Order: sequence, then C-alpha cells, then structure tokens
Amino acid sequence: MILRRLDEIYAIAQHRAGYSPEEDAAHELAAGWLREAGLEVRVDEAGNLFGVRGDGRVWCGSHLDSVPTAGRFDGALGVVAAIEAVAAVADDAPGAPLAVVVFRDEEGWRFGEGCFGSRSVAGQVGPVGLARTDAAGVTIEAALAALGLPGPPVDVTLPAAYVEVHIEQGPALDAAGFALADVTAIAGMAGFNVTFRGASGHAGTVPMADRSDAFAACADLAVRLRERALEVPGAVATIGDVAIAQPAANVIPGVVRATVDVRAPSAAALDLLVAAVPAVAAEVATRNRCGVDAVRAWRSEPVSLSPRVRAAVQSAAGSAGVPVAEMASGAGHDAGILAAAGVDAGMLFVRSLNGGVSHRPDELSSEADIAAAIAVLTGTLRSLL
Amino acid sequence: MILRRLDEIYAIAQHRAGYSPEEDAAHELAAGWLREAGLEVRVDEAGNLFGVRGDGRVWCGSHLDSVPTAGRFDGALGVVAAIEAVAAVADDAPGAPLAVVVFRDEEGWRFGEGCFGSRSVAGQVGPVGLARTDAAGVTIEAALAALGLPGPPVDVTLPAAYVEVHIEQGPALDAAGFALADVTAIAGMAGFNVTFRGASGHAGTVPMADRSDAFAACADLAVRLRERALEVPGAVATIGDVAIAQPAANVIPGVVRATVDVRAPSAAALDLLVAAVPAVAAEVATRNRCGVDAVRAWRSEPVSLSPRVRAAVQSAAGSAGVPVAEMASGAGHDAGILAAAGVDAGMLFVRSLNGGVSHRPDELSSEADIAAAIAVLTGTLRSLL
Repeated sequence: MILRRLDEIYAIAQHRAGYSPEEDAAHELAAGWLREAGLEVRVDEAGNLFGVRGDGRVWCGSHLDSVPTAGRFDGALGVVAAIEAVAAVADDAPGAPLAVVVFRDEEGWRFGEGCFGSRSVAGQVGPVGLARTDAAGVTIEAALAALGLPGPPVDVTLPAAYVEVHIEQGPALDAAGFALADVTAIAGMAGFNVTFRGASGHAGTVPMADRSDAFAACADLAVRLRERALEVPGAVATIGDVAIAQPAANVIPGVVRATVDVRAPSAAALDLLVAAVPAVAAEVATRNRCGVDAVRAWRSEPVSLSPRVRAAVQSAAGSAGVPVAEMASGAGHDAGILAAAGVDAGMLFVRSLNGGVSHRPDELSSEADIAAAIAVLTGTLRSLL
Repeated sequence: MILRRLDEIYAIAQHRAGYSPEEDAAHELAAGWLREAGLEVRVDEAGNLFGVRGDGRVWCGSHLDSVPTAGRFDGALGVVAAIEAVAAVADDAPGAPLAVVVFRDEEGWRFGEGCFGSRSVAGQVGPVGLARTDAAGVTIEAALAALGLPGPPVDVTLPAAYVEVHIEQGPALDAAGFALADVTAIAGMAGFNVTFRGASGHAGTVPMADRSDAFAACADLAVRLRERALEVPGAVATIGDVAIAQPAANVIPGVVRATVDVRAPSAAALDLLVAAVPAVAAEVATRNRCGVDAVRAWRSEPVSLSPRVRAAVQSAAGSAGVPVAEMASGAGHDAGILAAAGVDAGMLFVRSLNGGVSHRPDELSSEADIAAAIAVLTGTLRSLL
C-alpha cells in the first residue's frame, strides 16, 4: 500500500515544485486518501492540507513537493506513513484527535527559501518572505493569489505535538545498522559567498612565487575548512559551487567565487565554524596574495527536538521491539520550524539505502524499515494523545 | 615613432584574430612601412608578410594578430622594432641581406593552435593541421582559400638566423631590475584534462568522513601540484578552468573537471611534472574516495635557442652598455618553432611593467626599454650578417 502510494505520487511528476500544478495534483491525490481514511479535509490560507479528526490537536505529516531530480521517498514517505499510522490508531481509538498535515513548498526550489508552508503556520512569514521572487520575477504572494490562496493564516492554533517521519537522506543509519533514528535536533546551518580577487596572468610567464592565483586560494580554503569541520563532532563544511571568472586552461585565475555551507548540531559548534569561514578565507587569501570578501548569506540556528516526543518515540520503539539510533539532522525539516515556534516536535528517520543518496531517483528505503517506522509512529501518536 | 606605430596598429582593432580582416589590415599597414624602409614586400602562400633586402637570409620580426583582450605590445612590438633595426643596419650597410617577417596567426585564437604562420614556414602543418576548425566549423584551409591563399608554402629556404623581440609578458625582469633578457630557451609544456568522479550528496546529511567529494579532490590536486612545481626550478603548474557538474551550494560535488597546464625549462623537469599530474591525481582521488581520469591533451618539448644568436645578443648588449638578464620563456613563440626546425633562432625580451600583466589593455613596456631593445637588436643583426 505504502509503496503503491509512493509510486502514484511519483507518477504525477518527479519534479513537483511548491505551488505548482504538480504539487496541487499530489495534494488532491492525498486529500482523497484522507477522506477514505475518514478524516475531515481542510486546506488553510497558505494551501497546507489537513486531514482532521476531532480537534486534531496532535499532528503528523510531511510534504509532497519535490526537487527536479527527486526520488520517491523524500517528503512523500512522511505523508503516506502518517495516513497509515492515524488509521491504525483509529482502530483502537476511533475518536482520537489526530491530524495528518501536508505542508506546502518544503524544498523551496522555486522561491529559494524552504518550509514556506510550515513557516506560514508558525507565523514566520512576513512581507519580506512574501516578496521573494522566482526566476521569472513572480512573487510568492502572486503565486499564492493565482491559486486563490490569501497567504499565511493569521489565526492558527498550533498543535500539542507534531511527529514527522522522513527518509534519512544520508548514510549514517545504514553504516550503524539501524532501521530508524530518533532525531535529537535539527542542525544549525549557515551559508557564505566567498570571492577571491587575485590577478589573472599567463600560465607560462608568471613564476609560482609571484602569483596571485584566486583558484589556489579557493583550493586552500577547501582543504583548511575540511580540517576544521573534522575537528568539530557532527559538523560538516561543503564547497558546492565554484566559478572562475573567464576560465581558460592557460590563464591563472584572477577572480573566483565559491559558496560555503557549514552545519553543526549545536549553536556553540556552529559559532566555531561560522567564525572560521572568514578567518580561514582571509588567511588563505593573504598566503596567495589575493583579496577576499566572505559574506554570510544566511544562518539558521540549531533546534532541539522535544524531550516529550522523543520519550514517546523511544518508548514506542521499545514496545515494537525496534532498536532506534539517536542522531541530529543535518538537513532542515518542517519539524524544525514547528519546534522553533514552541511546538513539541519530533522526527523519526528511516534508513536510506544505496549509500544514503538523496534528491536522486535511486533514493531508497526498504519496505521492512518503512513498516517499522509506521509501527513506531503509531505507538508514538497513541502515547501523545 | 615606435609608440605611434603601436598605437596605429591598436587603432585598427584591439582584437586582430589570425586570418581576420583586422589582421589583414595590420599586415597592409606594416607592408606600407616596409616599402617606406626600402624593402621589397613579399607575401608567402600562408599569408606571412616579408620585407626583404638582397637574399634576405637573416630574419627578424614577430606577429600582428592579437587576442580579444590584447594590449599594444604583444607581437606588434617585435614587428615595429624589427623595421627600425633593419633601417638602422642599412645606414651603415645599405645592401645587408636582411628580412623583416610578420608571421600569421601566432595566438591561435580562432583555430585553437598557435603559430600557424611560422609552423607553415617550418613545414610543420599537415592535413590534420589544415583541417582544424573554428567555432563555426570553418577549416583553416577554407579560411586561407577565402583570402586567396593556397596554404603552407612547399618550397621554403629557411633563414640563416632569426631574431625576435617580444614583450616578456611576466614580472621577472621588472623584479630583477633588467630592461632586457637574452632568452635561453622556450619552456616545454603539457596540458591535461582531469575528471574526478565522486558521489554527489546532501551537504547536511553526509558526514565528512563518508564523503566522496570531487571538489575536495580537485582542491587537494591544486595544493599538491603547487608544492611539486615549487620544488622544480623554473617550473609552473596552473589549474585554469574548473567545472563542477550541476553545482549547488547545498550539494556535495559529484563530478569535477579541471584543466592542468604544466611548464618547465628542461625536458627532464617537464618529465617530472608530466609524471606527477596523473600520480598526484590518483593519490588525491583515493584519499577522497573518488575515481579519476587524468588525460594528457598535448605536450610540446622545450627548445634551446641558438648559442650563436645568443652570443651575438650578449655581445651587442655589451657594446650598447645594456645589461641583459638570461631567462627561459614560459610562453610559446614563433622563434621556438623556427628553432625546433633547425634555424639559429634567438629572442630578446623587453621588460613588462604593471606587474607583468599580459593579454590586457594595460600591458606595458617603457619607451626607454624599447629603445634599448632596438639598439641591441641592431647590433645583433650586424654581427649575424
């Protein structure tokens, strides 16, 4: 059932951008499943989809939008698993006040900032957020209006608790031999744009010692930041995008732009890395006779997930006989948005196979691991009621 | 006179591609100056321009084509200086058998391989060379035919000697405090295309120790090759073009392509670097859990310049009271093509100011240094007759 539903969602389109016709179609499909499960379907002012029973004060869910290269599990697994778990709870407790929630635009692919739906619910979207534009210059506000959606809801009752099942998107659980993880926190993260300015020159006529090679500075930055990240437990640093101005095989690079993404499980560890980026950039620039700008583009604080929900997850896992690991999430999630807004939020990661690949068609979790996640989610919801 | 003529050539166009109307116009302008100097103007089957007296068995000259971002001196200086020096020799020896030569398409901008004119004279252009195409798919052969040029000359009498004045295009002479250099050799060079294949992944969810980061491997390569080049006197290594496949700030790079350009003054030193590139690439690939292909795209052997011409340069400099440095050229030149073909060839470098910038509008040599170069070239030609 689960895998068939994941296939049905994937068959709509691999790429289901937030507020696109493809995301709409996925929400419509899910709304049908919610009705079949006997839940009352509601859509809020930002387009988030709810399947509610009673006052629906305990939520579980995830998102159905996806990136262009997406696989079947990211987001969709959490929605389909929530529908199953809510139905299983209803078998014993037909009136249990639960809600399945499907948040809009978690990936932020079109407008460049993730979790629009959950941020709307959490009251975190203001005029600046609404004025963000896509590549064609369309604002989120206009995109919402075109779909008949007024915008972030103004009068929201936040849930008593929120639980989200999500594919891990990394190799840690498979390496450690666990099917599931109780997620302890959402990592803190920051992004930098670094520009090294040296002097372009002829690859044959400028001695090594006289060069102001902007790519040499960038390479030194990559090596040094890798060392720094390895010194901080749980931290990562990534240079994902590098552009040499006017590149040519026989020209020493004069200007190089690079992105730096750093993440760490605690605010103190994130502080260390956020301070390291401009310091190391300045050091390697001097060493390579270059100038440098290292501009922090964004920062998102780490969020601890709820001890109450985590205790419920651990207890449900114990009852189900499923060992669970504990780990922080290096990726952002809707659960992190709700947790930061004061909701008791928790997450259950499901082991990624295939080396932990993510945002790829070969992203994979096994049917057995998914069944274990639904069992643990069911138990968790019961104890949170 | 010299600077005015350089300005006149630059006024035709900053970018005078080989076999373009702009290069044609520069050759036409130079042909007028050759006639004014009392030389007999000839154009060979490849479009190279000669201004000949008697049997013209000693040549001096350079090229008038230029790159899109060119300054005033690269190539043009050697042509204008040659006209001056030949005129100065004629003051004392009116029948001296000298020739000024203006080679076509030294930069190789349009067809991707430099020194077409001198390689034609040296008998080094075969069917493969003639079939090279520009970005629009036009072959060199067709471009020559469109200008009424039959192609590389088949019956060439190589000169008894060739001397070329050229701007240094680097910072070495200015740093050492010399106006001129007697060029000892043209460096050997080789180019590689290196591709690292790792695994792309989410920047937040893959621990540092589990990554197969293709850009991390490329950064390690840059750092290690810089170290290797610094160990070999006179050697340089440059990574000038780097492309991450599907770059994104929050994605670990899966595939990275980079060019590597290595140069060294001797064949033995070049051998060291040419062997180092694939060896270091394999080592850093393993360290970063990536695969790698390091393919040598081309190699050009180092060429020693003529002891006889160099002795003439040194003696003329001594007579003129101009101290000259000795240095190898890291850039290729028409003199290197003729030297490899067995001609007694030499070069005189003129100090680059402005930090040795090259292929830029602020490329600069001083009037005084140029005057010294013409004096030494004049003396050199006298002793080579």
